[in-house]
Amino acid sequence: MTRDSRFDVLFEPVKIGPVTAPNRFYQVPHASGMTNALPRVRAAFRETKAEGGWGVICTGACSIDPSSDDAPLPFATMWDLNDIHAHALMTDAVHRHGSLAGVELWHGGASVMNRQSRLPPLSPSGIPWMATHVGFMGNMRPKVMDKSDIKAVLRWQAEGARKARTAGFDIVYVYAGMGYLGYEFLLPEYNHRTDEYGGSIENRVRFVREMLDVTRDAVGKDCGVALRVSLEELRGRPGRNQPSEAHELIEILSDYADLFDVKMDSSPTDCSASRFTGEASHEPVIDFVKKLTDKPVVGVGRFTSPDTMVSQIRRGVLDFIGGARPSIADPFLPNKIREGRAEEIRECIGCNICISSWHDGVPVRCTQNPTAGEEWRRGWHPERVEPAHQKEKILVIGGGPAGLECALTLGRRGHEVTLADAGKAFGGRLAFETRLPGLATWGRVVDYRLGRLNEMPNVSMYLESQLGVDEIIDLAPDHVVLATGAHWTRMLYSSLEIPVGTLEHPEVYTPDDIAAGHLPEGPTLVFDFDNYYYGGVLTEHLASKGIPVSYVTPAGQASAWTIMTNELPLVHRALARRQVPVTTLHMVTGFDGEKATLTHLFTGEQMTIDCRSVLIVGLRMPRTELQEALAARQDELSAAGIRSVTAIGDALSPGAITHAVHSGHKFAREHGSIGLPQYYKRDTPIVDREPGFELRAAAE
Amino acid sequence: MTRDSRFDVLFEPVKIGPVTAPNRFYQVPHASGMTNALPRVRAAFRETKAEGGWGVICTGACSIDPSSDDAPLPFATMWDLNDIHAHALMTDAVHRHGSLAGVELWHGGASVMNRQSRLPPLSPSGIPWMATHVGFMGNMRPKVMDKSDIKAVLRWQAEGARKARTAGFDIVYVYAGMGYLGYEFLLPEYNHRTDEYGGSIENRVRFVREMLDVTRDAVGKDCGVALRVSLEELRGRPGRNQPSEAHELIEILSDYADLFDVKMDSSPTDCSASRFTGEASHEPVIDFVKKLTDKPVVGVGRFTSPDTMVSQIRRGVLDFIGGARPSIADPFLPNKIREGRAEEIRECIGCNICISSWHDGVPVRCTQNPTAGEEWRRGWHPERVEPAHQKEKILVIGGGPAGLECALTLGRRGHEVTLADAGKAFGGRLAFETRLPGLATWGRVVDYRLGRLNEMPNVSMYLESQLGVDEIIDLAPDHVVLATGAHWTRMLYSSLEIPVGTLEHPEVYTPDDIAAGHLPEGPTLVFDFDNYYYGGVLTEHLASKGIPVSYVTPAGQASAWTIMTNELPLVHRALARRQVPVTTLHMVTGFDGEKATLTHLFTGEQMTIDCRSVLIVGLRMPRTELQEALAARQDELSAAGIRSVTAIGDALSPGAITHAVHSGHKFAREHGSIGLPQYYKRDTPIVDREPGFELRAAAE
Repeated sequence: MTRDSRFDVLFEPVKIGPVTAPNRFYQVPHASGMTNALPRVRAAFRETKAEGGWGVICTGACSIDPSSDDAPLPFATMWDLNDIHAHALMTDAVHRHGSLAGVELWHGGASVMNRQSRLPPLSPSGIPWMATHVGFMGNMRPKVMDKSDIKAVLRWQAEGARKARTAGFDIVYVYAGMGYLGYEFLLPEYNHRTDEYGGSIENRVRFVREMLDVTRDAVGKDCGVALRVSLEELRGRPGRNQPSEAHELIEILSDYADLFDVKMDSSPTDCSASRFTGEASHEPVIDFVKKLTDKPVVGVGRFTSPDTMVSQIRRGVLDFIGGARPSIADPFLPNKIREGRAEEIRECIGCNICISSWHDGVPVRCTQNPTAGEEWRRGWHPERVEPAHQKEKILVIGGGPAGLECALTLGRRGHEVTLADAGKAFGGRLAFETRLPGLATWGRVVDYRLGRLNEMPNVSMYLESQLGVDEIIDLAPDHVVLATGAHWTRMLYSSLEIPVGTLEHPEVYTPDDIAAGHLPEGPTLVFDFDNYYYGGVLTEHLASKGIPVSYVTPAGQASAWTIMTNELPLVHRALARRQVPVTTLHMVTGFDGEKATLTHLFTGEQMTIDCRSVLIVGLRMPRTELQEALAARQDELSAAGIRSVTAIGDALSPGAITHAVHSGHKFAREHGSIGLPQYYKRDTPIVDREPGFELRAAAE
Repeated sequence: MTRDSRFDVLFEPVKIGPVTAPNRFYQVPHASGMTNALPRVRAAFRETKAEGGWGVICTGACSIDPSSDDAPLPFATMWDLNDIHAHALMTDAVHRHGSLAGVELWHGGASVMNRQSRLPPLSPSGIPWMATHVGFMGNMRPKVMDKSDIKAVLRWQAEGARKARTAGFDIVYVYAGMGYLGYEFLLPEYNHRTDEYGGSIENRVRFVREMLDVTRDAVGKDCGVALRVSLEELRGRPGRNQPSEAHELIEILSDYADLFDVKMDSSPTDCSASRFTGEASHEPVIDFVKKLTDKPVVGVGRFTSPDTMVSQIRRGVLDFIGGARPSIADPFLPNKIREGRAEEIRECIGCNICISSWHDGVPVRCTQNPTAGEEWRRGWHPERVEPAHQKEKILVIGGGPAGLECALTLGRRGHEVTLADAGKAFGGRLAFETRLPGLATWGRVVDYRLGRLNEMPNVSMYLESQLGVDEIIDLAPDHVVLATGAHWTRMLYSSLEIPVGTLEHPEVYTPDDIAAGHLPEGPTLVFDFDNYYYGGVLTEHLASKGIPVSYVTPAGQASAWTIMTNELPLVHRALARRQVPVTTLHMVTGFDGEKATLTHLFTGEQMTIDCRSVLIVGLRMPRTELQEALAARQDELSAAGIRSVTAIGDALSPGAITHAVHSGHKFAREHGSIGLPQYYKRDTPIVDREPGFELRAAAE
């Protein structure tokens, strides 16, 4: 295939100061959860994107000093010789594919708690950040930086930049975004200083300008110097000579950086979930930057459409198509466009499981790309699988996320695959969930896999095919894979903080009932102790049908876990827009058809809410009927030549879609491997390159 | 000094199966946050307790298989050869002092989320744990264990026990407590099984009994086998032949273990804060165990009083005095009793900052013992400090936690120290806070230090001594240390989730006003965005004075950060007992003397609460007046021979008391050290003992 020539512009080289990117695909710095503790995992994760055609590959935030210690959140370090060697694994890997390697040097300022180093966090004026979220909340407030602290940070940045150059990086960042130290100087809410670093926009920009200066001095002509800056708040503040302070900042710094990496201010707007925000959402904030500087500009916007990308370039919004999430979902996105295979792109669905991984403190996970993070430790490649040593007949029952991924990967390995689903459409839970408010984009999980499966001659697919034991024995496959999913229970929640008992009443519903088209009667109480998106989305769904709904959870927030995916504030706004009363910290403990009894999780105090129906979004359990029926007739299975029956995905362990996809992929990868399946290789840090070294301290 | 002979019983040796503990001081397994990633930090932390006289020293939870992966919470591993070598650093260190080393082998079952390994968590019946707390909350539910899973766990336990023996451990644990896998089999709420592992107590105990069997088979006569079991829930359930199922469990297992380590079921009751619970609180639950077994029994109860310890032995409650928190606060507790120096014990205050460290994912921190976790990386010993190379005159201004610790440590180093405080009593913030509901025990921070300081001839202490610049110049010390603390501001909280603006009204109070004896007039709203204990405690305090109080916070719970210290449910109960209405997720945005306006943190919706006064427990800022006044007269200071002025503790970076103590200690340790002060040594895992190894998987 050849590509449409209108995409050629995406493959033009672009200069970034003294270095040149081979094309316009720029993987901006993003959290990977990998840190210097997992240097080989990290290098392989980043290398795969270079192999897939991204012209620039950056690290995530990389601390320049122990006073920027984000523990327990994952962060990389550029402190010592071991660190340089650890990063060099990544730069070498990226260079092997002709791409540039960038490093996001970083000081977290007041946003870090220095839980590991126990040094006082630094800040312009002693204002802490997100002091209300447990997990982000520290019990140490930042110190106010004096002039010697400012000099120290500038020195650490310069030292970090020199170390980065030694490690082989081509682009070195100054970071002034997302609540971190540089950003705190820019915003008057954080910066109450009365010296030359506070007050006017010129003064507030001074620290960032000095950071750029020392960086350039440190790297000389060997590396490009990039500024990453959040512009959302500043864009909303009128400037004196320009429409906004964001304009003034770019005007002041126009010649200080070789590249501007521009973005929003907080994770919920910068890395927003598709449920609430579409592609290219940053444009209204960052569209002016190119008008005020001749230097190249990169920005993100969950770009997966080549046409949108070309439009961003043609209209003068961006020079580089920044990618973080789309580069995780499909590391080969650029190559697929280059080779005219754009329809094969595994498009990011914007579910933000990737960012939840960082919040969870672990390596990145992706719903669309189960190989993300597994490149080194499990040897998985997103585009290549090992052909099966022996082709076998494998029956996959259930065409939801796990079954689709399993069938696809087994098919790629050359097996003769039959995929059977009892429903009228493939997709499993997604067949219904993608029709709910905001979740249409998640359909890409199904679309991508069905698109590839339909091209495979060795895969047969059947809908409305309810297979029982007899039918399975008649089909006589070599192996049976059960991807039959899970069902929601009517279990309640106890003060032991575990699901317990069931609520028995004709007007008690589960999400399965709603998916089957049954709407509850009259005022309905949604009791959510699943706490991920589904309870909130179903509440929106019922409200959109005109049903008066109230929402109750034992958690402290609605859809509490969605703080992990940057959705939580938007969930509350969505429920408020639909006039849904939200009651937190309560369990439903009774229901008589006219009112529900709620019990406070901690105090045991009771209250009631009038309602005619209760929808419990609580515990899921695997559907095991078929598995049990098969087990009961094991002898007949053996006689028919069926050598194994294996449950995957929700049928094994109910969870988020990302886990189902991973489970299906894992089975397919490992099926038939010689000997025992491997768990994974354990990565270890680079040690002893600098024996007995101690961290040097700043002159206080 | 010699000890009172009534304490002799504490120093008797006790047999644990084939091994013998040198005395009855038993450091039970407890979280250290150190893991195999910091093996030298861990070994030194544990060694210090052996040096201090603890006869048995145990690790924290140590995973036997990647299917027990608690990431991002810290957990040790016993998976491979590198792990064995890492643990051997600790066992060697413990043996150097004649103590026994124990290892708490562990499988987390449904309580872990396997975020790192991505394997399905295991559980008896698919019931997840604490599914409502973000941070504990996963989005993967556990699989139901089949017989092959049970066999696999038994095999992992046996392999773990053999590895533990190789690593040099003397005592090997089976763990059936605190929501982990063994415990889940014991409780019917988790265990719905219909096979021989579910139903009757005999069946529910079967898995634990088999774990004990395989452990003994694995270690033979080289190690004692210990059972750690939570008895709180089972004690509340009537047995068939015994008063409770807890009795029945001990009866069944009486001969299967060499030692019973008995405890409560959940962190808030097992490791309860002194604010709500006193010494020896476990006794009513575990007092029966010794009546049903001849094997030695260990239990905890935040024991710091030698008399209580002796009473536990004499009354037949325990054979070993278990210690976790008291052993962190004073690793030398046993030696101090042995040597007749019990009054020198640095008694645990029960603040639970130690357990918050584990929740925070970092090495243990202690309010009383600033050297905890710093033994290796900063070279700090709890009982020894390096004498000063040059004795100097040092003036410490402010006798709160930071100033007291700083003066004490400077005094130990031999400096000529003057400690001056403006108040009528030493203690700083604690002088008031210890008078608040539940906080009296925290007075030990002051008492311990004053006790030692009063013995030091080279330390002079002055109360009611308000020093200004002139007085300081007159005193002409070599160095001035400012431990002047912080003050509470009237700042509010913005939708950016940072403190912003101030609320100006005559009836707006801060905690400083309350500490100064001013009580607000009429119905009072407490607006808490500090979110640690103080807002909740002050609310209790006002309510106890008969003031009608309501409590408002932008967090999801009252005193939200106290989930880290196991207090949160009890805070809610305490507020409910005092009839305090709690409003979460709201910020105070206005107050006119008759009503406060509240704005929802996420939706912006407004409501009002009638009140005559508002108490803001929000942002603290350092008291810097003296520091600024001194800086303005730097020339005069130099002329007087004053060589440095340094702020420590809250005067530098307001925080929890633990941070203030650490800050004061750090200054005193590092003062006058040659060259730049050291940050800390960076520990690294043991690597490459088994090059190229891969984790072996279970046969599925």
